[in-house]
Amino acid sequence: MKIIVQKFGGSSLTTKERRVQAANKVIVAKREGYANVVVVSAIGRIGDPYATDTLINMAKEVNRDVIPRELDLLLNCGEIISAVVLCQVFTGLGYDATVLTGAQAGIITDRAFTEARILRVNPEKILKNLKENKIVIVAGFQGVTDEGDLTTLGRGGSDTTASALGVALNAEFVDIFTDVDGIKTADPRIVKNARTLEVITYNEICQLAHQGAKVLHPRAVEIAMQKNIPLRVRSTFEDSLGTLVTNYGDTYNTVEISSDRLLTGITHVPNITQLKIFTNKSENTKGLELKIFRAMALSNISIDFINVHPHQVIFTVKDDDALKAEKIIENIGLTAEVLPGCAKVSAVGANMAGVPGVMSKIVEALTEENIQILQTADSHTTIWCLVRKEDMEKAVIALHKKFNLS
Amino acid sequence: MKIIVQKFGGSSLTTKERRVQAANKVIVAKREGYANVVVVSAIGRIGDPYATDTLINMAKEVNRDVIPRELDLLLNCGEIISAVVLCQVFTGLGYDATVLTGAQAGIITDRAFTEARILRVNPEKILKNLKENKIVIVAGFQGVTDEGDLTTLGRGGSDTTASALGVALNAEFVDIFTDVDGIKTADPRIVKNARTLEVITYNEICQLAHQGAKVLHPRAVEIAMQKNIPLRVRSTFEDSLGTLVTNYGDTYNTVEISSDRLLTGITHVPNITQLKIFTNKSENTKGLELKIFRAMALSNISIDFINVHPHQVIFTVKDDDALKAEKIIENIGLTAEVLPGCAKVSAVGANMAGVPGVMSKIVEALTEENIQILQTADSHTTIWCLVRKEDMEKAVIALHKKFNLS
Repeated sequence: MKIIVQKFGGSSLTTKERRVQAANKVIVAKREGYANVVVVSAIGRIGDPYATDTLINMAKEVNRDVIPRELDLLLNCGEIISAVVLCQVFTGLGYDATVLTGAQAGIITDRAFTEARILRVNPEKILKNLKENKIVIVAGFQGVTDEGDLTTLGRGGSDTTASALGVALNAEFVDIFTDVDGIKTADPRIVKNARTLEVITYNEICQLAHQGAKVLHPRAVEIAMQKNIPLRVRSTFEDSLGTLVTNYGDTYNTVEISSDRLLTGITHVPNITQLKIFTNKSENTKGLELKIFRAMALSNISIDFINVHPHQVIFTVKDDDALKAEKIIENIGLTAEVLPGCAKVSAVGANMAGVPGVMSKIVEALTEENIQILQTADSHTTIWCLVRKEDMEKAVIALHKKFNLS
Repeated sequence: MKIIVQKFGGSSLTTKERRVQAANKVIVAKREGYANVVVVSAIGRIGDPYATDTLINMAKEVNRDVIPRELDLLLNCGEIISAVVLCQVFTGLGYDATVLTGAQAGIITDRAFTEARILRVNPEKILKNLKENKIVIVAGFQGVTDEGDLTTLGRGGSDTTASALGVALNAEFVDIFTDVDGIKTADPRIVKNARTLEVITYNEICQLAHQGAKVLHPRAVEIAMQKNIPLRVRSTFEDSLGTLVTNYGDTYNTVEISSDRLLTGITHVPNITQLKIFTNKSENTKGLELKIFRAMALSNISIDFINVHPHQVIFTVKDDDALKAEKIIENIGLTAEVLPGCAKVSAVGANMAGVPGVMSKIVEALTEENIQILQTADSHTTIWCLVRKEDMEKAVIALHKKFNLS
């Protein structure tokens, strides 16, 4: 039995027309001889009564603090409703289809309510239904603990469901359907000639996701990568094959992965605040940075772009956390130089490691456009630049052009 | 541990104020030393996005035929949402509370989707939570099969859940909260001085329910009756103890059941059609009635008020089924005399059996008001009269008065 897992995000299920388009993607695969597993997110229409946010707001209206276990019970309903509605489309078109909740699909998680991790998948019930030639629709984003408590998987949870099922069922493909036709070299709202990548590696896409590209959730990618299950990021509303996510060197039907690409894409994250903390050189500042970072962690503030020097600690936080972070630093008896309204622009590419001149090309591109670089950092796959928010779009366009990504 | 099960219908949960009133009923019982199990129906606001009807309509909009198994999955969400919202009220008031789905509460049913029957209850999870001093909120109307498929219990399902839990937990009381303050001697919209009954027997309430009174579902009563668990029908919005449902002779705190009541109440069912089928006396009509009844059963038409004579068969159907029934009779080669727009008025009382003069009193009451009796029938607990629909209210008032029920 050759199995395909196809996941549809909330925006692919908002209207009757969209649901039929989604169903058609599944039917095409069925005609190609696949056994079909369909994973759905909650219907994601803004203001939709079954959207995740609406469900959360309803509980919070009564009492702002929602017990995570009960919140997960509530959130489970969003994907179940969505799955039954899509099932109706299939049966209306004359196909035999059935719905499984995360629990019924055998998705066993730990007890970290609202952010549960999948421990294992027991795919017996799915396989039984597939053998009966049914289209199996699984409510994404959810699972069940060994004790029978319902859980949700956190951000990108339905992608994770799809990936985990792909691995458990040894699927030929896991298709992630969305409203764009694949992974782009940059945000097309900023870079008009951003290109859709035909192929991308698991590592590259993880980097892009970590650097702010709204693509697959890294956890979903990591799960697929373990068993080398190919993912495809595709559009529900177009006919293209989208972007194939796999390993270098692997070959599939029509595409072969080229490994000569220096950069995969340019990403950006706005609304960042830079904090610089200086101390007098005569002071004993040993352990200062540890003190700062511990205090931030205790307050649940995630920090980024960290540069530590003997008498200077620089890092960034989200604009939303800036006031809180400043207070914490004051409480330690220090003063921070605060620069709000920054943005992080990243050049991501698995092949840039060891290639000379990449950083100089980046600096060149930004300087030519009169963009001030506030801070830089780099790993073997990514170079980050902190710029002012008003320079962000210009910076993305300049880098995209400099590296000929279009 | 003395346990109380308290069930709240959809109309008790529509607004914030109502939910707080419902929660207060639970908190009062908690202060009295009870361990609390709360059963909820789906929030029943007309047009409410989480109401059962809204969920059904949503599925039917896509495709009128909904697979019963998938319909049950969908319907399960209504009560879960409702339970989490009520849980929020308790935690907001500082009480420790938790939600269990029907499956988590251990309600095991057969596989008759949309009309499942409870096979057994495994109350371990409820008991564990009660021992931790938590208010346990159970999503009513739902259960799970041994195979892990989610089911619903059909009409009056949440009452059935409450009753079954009352039996499984050996509860002191099962309180059924609604928007009226108990069981009435007649519909108060028709009979202004209808009285709330202080006590009623399991048998009486079953009769009332079967004869059209919108009270407890008979199945819920039958379950409680088996283990003699007292039910109380009470108002969420008033302070009275409502109507106690129990056996004759049992005594509770303040009330003792009197057994000298001839009639319990007067009920009514409108929108009924009478069909009379005559045959020529010379014809061989052996087995005629069997032929008619079998044809009706095959077409899923339920018939009532059946009078069989050698050359005459009379019965009633719902107005909605009348045309279909007429067709069926024509197909058998017979003609029916059809009288639509009738109503069934019933005098219900467990003690009327063997008491002479009850029927004559009924005929007297109706004749005094110039109401034509179209047909009558009687069992040892009930006398039914078929009247024209326009006479229905007058008939209910007349009977209520004649038997001094106010």
